[in-house]
Amino acid sequence: MNTQFENIAILGRHDDPRVAEPMQVLTRHLTKAGINVLAADSINLDLPAARMDESDLCEQADLVIAIGGDGTMLYASRLARESDTPILGINRGRLGFLADVTPDEMIASVDQVLNGEYSRDSRLVLEARLRTQSGETSSSFALNDVVLKRRETGRMVDFLTRVDGDYVNTHAGDGLIVATPTGSTAYSLSCGGPIISPQLDAVVVVPVCPHTLTDRPLVIPANQSIEVSLLERDETKASITVDGHAVGEIRPEDELVISAAAKRTTLIHPPGFNFYGILRSKLFWGRDNRRRES
Amino acid sequence: MNTQFENIAILGRHDDPRVAEPMQVLTRHLTKAGINVLAADSINLDLPAARMDESDLCEQADLVIAIGGDGTMLYASRLARESDTPILGINRGRLGFLADVTPDEMIASVDQVLNGEYSRDSRLVLEARLRTQSGETSSSFALNDVVLKRRETGRMVDFLTRVDGDYVNTHAGDGLIVATPTGSTAYSLSCGGPIISPQLDAVVVVPVCPHTLTDRPLVIPANQSIEVSLLERDETKASITVDGHAVGEIRPEDELVISAAAKRTTLIHPPGFNFYGILRSKLFWGRDNRRRES
Amino acid sequence: MNTQFENIAILGRHDDPRVAEPMQVLTRHLTKAGINVLAADSINLDLPAARMDESDLCEQADLVIAIGGDGTMLYASRLARESDTPILGINRGRLGFLADVTPDEMIASVDQVLNGEYSRDSRLVLEARLRTQSGETSSSFALNDVVLKRRETGRMVDFLTRVDGDYVNTHAGDGLIVATPTGSTAYSLSCGGPIISPQLDAVVVVPVCPHTLTDRPLVIPANQSIEVSLLERDETKASITVDGHAVGEIRPEDELVISAAAKRTTLIHPPGFNFYGILRSKLFWGRDNRRRES
Amino acid sequence: MNTQFENIAILGRHDDPRVAEPMQVLTRHLTKAGINVLAADSINLDLPAARMDESDLCEQADLVIAIGGDGTMLYASRLARESDTPILGINRGRLGFLADVTPDEMIASVDQVLNGEYSRDSRLVLEARLRTQSGETSSSFALNDVVLKRRETGRMVDFLTRVDGDYVNTHAGDGLIVATPTGSTAYSLSCGGPIISPQLDAVVVVPVCPHTLTDRPLVIPANQSIEVSLLERDETKASITVDGHAVGEIRPEDELVISAAAKRTTLIHPPGFNFYGILRSKLFWGRDNRRRES
Repeated sequence: MNTQFENIAILGRHDDPRVAEPMQVLTRHLTKAGINVLAADSINLDLPAARMDESDLCEQADLVIAIGGDGTMLYASRLARESDTPILGINRGRLGFLADVTPDEMIASVDQVLNGEYSRDSRLVLEARLRTQSGETSSSFALNDVVLKRRETGRMVDFLTRVDGDYVNTHAGDGLIVATPTGSTAYSLSCGGPIISPQLDAVVVVPVCPHTLTDRPLVIPANQSIEVSLLERDETKASITVDGHAVGEIRPEDELVISAAAKRTTLIHPPGFNFYGILRSKLFWGRDNRRRES
Repeated sequence: MNTQFENIAILGRHDDPRVAEPMQVLTRHLTKAGINVLAADSINLDLPAARMDESDLCEQADLVIAIGGDGTMLYASRLARESDTPILGINRGRLGFLADVTPDEMIASVDQVLNGEYSRDSRLVLEARLRTQSGETSSSFALNDVVLKRRETGRMVDFLTRVDGDYVNTHAGDGLIVATPTGSTAYSLSCGGPIISPQLDAVVVVPVCPHTLTDRPLVIPANQSIEVSLLERDETKASITVDGHAVGEIRPEDELVISAAAKRTTLIHPPGFNFYGILRSKLFWGRDNRRRES
Repeated sequence: MNTQFENIAILGRHDDPRVAEPMQVLTRHLTKAGINVLAADSINLDLPAARMDESDLCEQADLVIAIGGDGTMLYASRLARESDTPILGINRGRLGFLADVTPDEMIASVDQVLNGEYSRDSRLVLEARLRTQSGETSSSFALNDVVLKRRETGRMVDFLTRVDGDYVNTHAGDGLIVATPTGSTAYSLSCGGPIISPQLDAVVVVPVCPHTLTDRPLVIPANQSIEVSLLERDETKASITVDGHAVGEIRPEDELVISAAAKRTTLIHPPGFNFYGILRSKLFWGRDNRRRES
Repeated sequence: MNTQFENIAILGRHDDPRVAEPMQVLTRHLTKAGINVLAADSINLDLPAARMDESDLCEQADLVIAIGGDGTMLYASRLARESDTPILGINRGRLGFLADVTPDEMIASVDQVLNGEYSRDSRLVLEARLRTQSGETSSSFALNDVVLKRRETGRMVDFLTRVDGDYVNTHAGDGLIVATPTGSTAYSLSCGGPIISPQLDAVVVVPVCPHTLTDRPLVIPANQSIEVSLLERDETKASITVDGHAVGEIRPEDELVISAAAKRTTLIHPPGFNFYGILRSKLFWGRDNRRRES
């Protein structure tokens, strides 16, 4: 097959049978088509693929095919970030926000992509830098969101936000979400945030269960940075999670700075991808059981 | 059949074929069972039923069977209010909040009810009294809700609420809903109101699109009355609807007083009625398409 | 002074000067009026009061006067629960939801109460019983709320609710609040719950950041019990807090049962107490800075 | 005075004394400074200004100074749209979202602006085109929002949205708001929309009291157009308002298309303008009266 994707890395939770089977089917299909398939050493399956350390996978690949749900896509996004390798998501069960190819369409959709029939969908990634008082800085990257949450049960966390250095608000509550358009349909949505088109270069800042009832979601341009710092309270600390993974704690002397990462994540969609179609399916839009009949 | 419901009135929008057919089937079934079936003169169907003016129907009946959706149930509730006749709802299509018997269960459910296998579900009804400056008072009754809404496009309505004479708040926005527990799953829910158990004797007061962001739904005992009056503004007027029907306009000199009606509406449920089951079905509870798979 | 409150216990965070000073002023005033003032051994102030262990205080008192904010009132409520001693709250700074006497009104208000000019305000208290798999049961009491929250950052907690044994819903999200009317203006309000009149015997069940967008606050009669159990997930656990204090963890085999406690908390208000007045002040009602001028 | 604003138009509701007085003071001040002041014929005040028809005012002016509230600013925006004349807003009373100079700062602020000390703030304007079945098209322009609302009391309006031709959702409820970042703090905010930074080129689509609880605000790039059409129902019609002014009705055969207008509105701010400062003041941010004290 004459394709621009000559080297394709395969990813997924191979210990899940709903992943293992399509992974084997797909690997054989790609190999037969003359594609050089790459897989992590750790995948404990019989695959006709070149094996290597998972961390080298994306560097060597022209395309990553991730099999699983949106969690697997977030994982693939972390692996592919440095090398800028585009990602195609095959869903294991129902349609995902990110993994938009269903198992039964897998072969046909992959063939379309190999034939050049696909669209590129470049998604904003956030970089969260935590600067501690001692001067250390650690960086993490989020395709969905950076979340600050209170640790102590029964206490609010008090914190302050700035945008590009301008003081915005002093908040009290359970915490704060800074989400990309991709993340706007995840935890942010559960906390009252709006849905943001992935085509908009914006970030939404959503207070979680804010004590002040007028503290509302704020959407800002993606090229502005958000700084968060805790107010001094007894025993105050808050956790920081990035795409659902705990990355550290923040204390009053520290500062969390969230801004657009230099590199974005590129998703590959076979023809027919439709953001609103996925939303309608996920949110039962247009299916109004509550409607009163006359 | 030996039943306490010897005289049963049949109601429904007979011009809808999904109502007409079960209406005919049911009437024949009841007649065969020795029940005295009553129907309105206006029903243009061949029914083995005693005909009378619709307004006399409930007075003569021991039970009203309403065929249709929740709109028909609201209509039946209005007709049955004075005579306190209980109502059984047969749904035309999908399950309703009030009409909880599906068409295919109709005969079996009605037979259960005739055999005494049923529960009584007494629902709070609100009385809305509009007192105009000239001293006139008109009364309307709501099984769902009393709604005050601004008439002029593009302008807020400013109004003041009192509970049992105590000043509560000065509101600005699109209007106000005063809902029963039954109405808490209707328009009130769309405006941010809570779901209220029909077993709780309470009323919820819900501001509609309030300009003040801290203006929130308030739940009070059903034995307290809510007084609403408009603030003086140029050309101010607001409409009042009761269970979705316009009943008048309110002007700054007028007062709208909403309190529990002396009579309640009694619903009859065959065995198996489950308020939470209906909620789960109506609100897609437990069906989370948005859930991220790993 | 001829009063029904001959023995009055004084409570408060004596290490806060804004509490210590009114505590001393009040104790002297009461003693001069012939009242038998009781205070905890632990209060490190020069007070003309009979000293005893704090746990014996309420048993011996006809009235508790708590000086501080709403946190002190919650604390007083716990101490006074068994003995049913009524509580008068003196606020330290601004008006509280529960402590409704301001410092400068203190002496005048207390004298009114001693003269019999007061109202009793009986507040619902919740009992939270955690039944572990091993059969142990622990009980805690809440004047505000019982809160179940996920422990693990970045993961939802999945749980199931029943009301009086009837299955209600399967939830996923940050957790659940079960609040009294008193607690409806606390954390519950930050999570989208309605305000509930303290005169209504009801409980509100509020999902915290629910993943299912149709999962909404539910208000039920206070005589119905709410059962909560976790769904089996890897490493699932959730914390339980009662009025902001951690009381334990819940695991999938356990069950949390929340119901009205046998005893209520009685608040004493001097004349002029007004629930809506406090709400207006707390929520800036009627002060609409956002209003557009022509 | 050597300034780029040699011709300045003065606008405002001259029949309001809080406008008339600063208008006279300002006109005299500008005239003394050698500025050519322009005012509408209709202004019934003694002003040392060149008079003309209001519709010619902005064409001739290098700057419009609008005295009043945000309503006056919306009005000035309509007048200044064609000629692209920048607008400086003097508030009559409290600070506005758009009119950000307070009366007592008026002279000093205007002098700063004349001295070149100011910032330009270019705001997105929406164009709403209503295409009726007969082929007629009418256009209106919104600095805040375009709102579709149901006309009939007690009935929902059913409508369908598309973005750049892609079907988005079928809605039922009170209506829909399409708001600019400027309008995001107006009616949209009351209906659950997010706050959008005026520096972001985006539009928010907010359902008003949606019947489907998962129908949520959607933020899209400003260069995408939103098409709205009503579903066929008996007697269906909905009104369309633009910045609060009724501009027509929409019927099922019609289509409403909303997109970014070719011309934007330029606001002039003296030094010190701060969007977040205005938000904090308007929304009482950081002032948490509800906070529990210990």
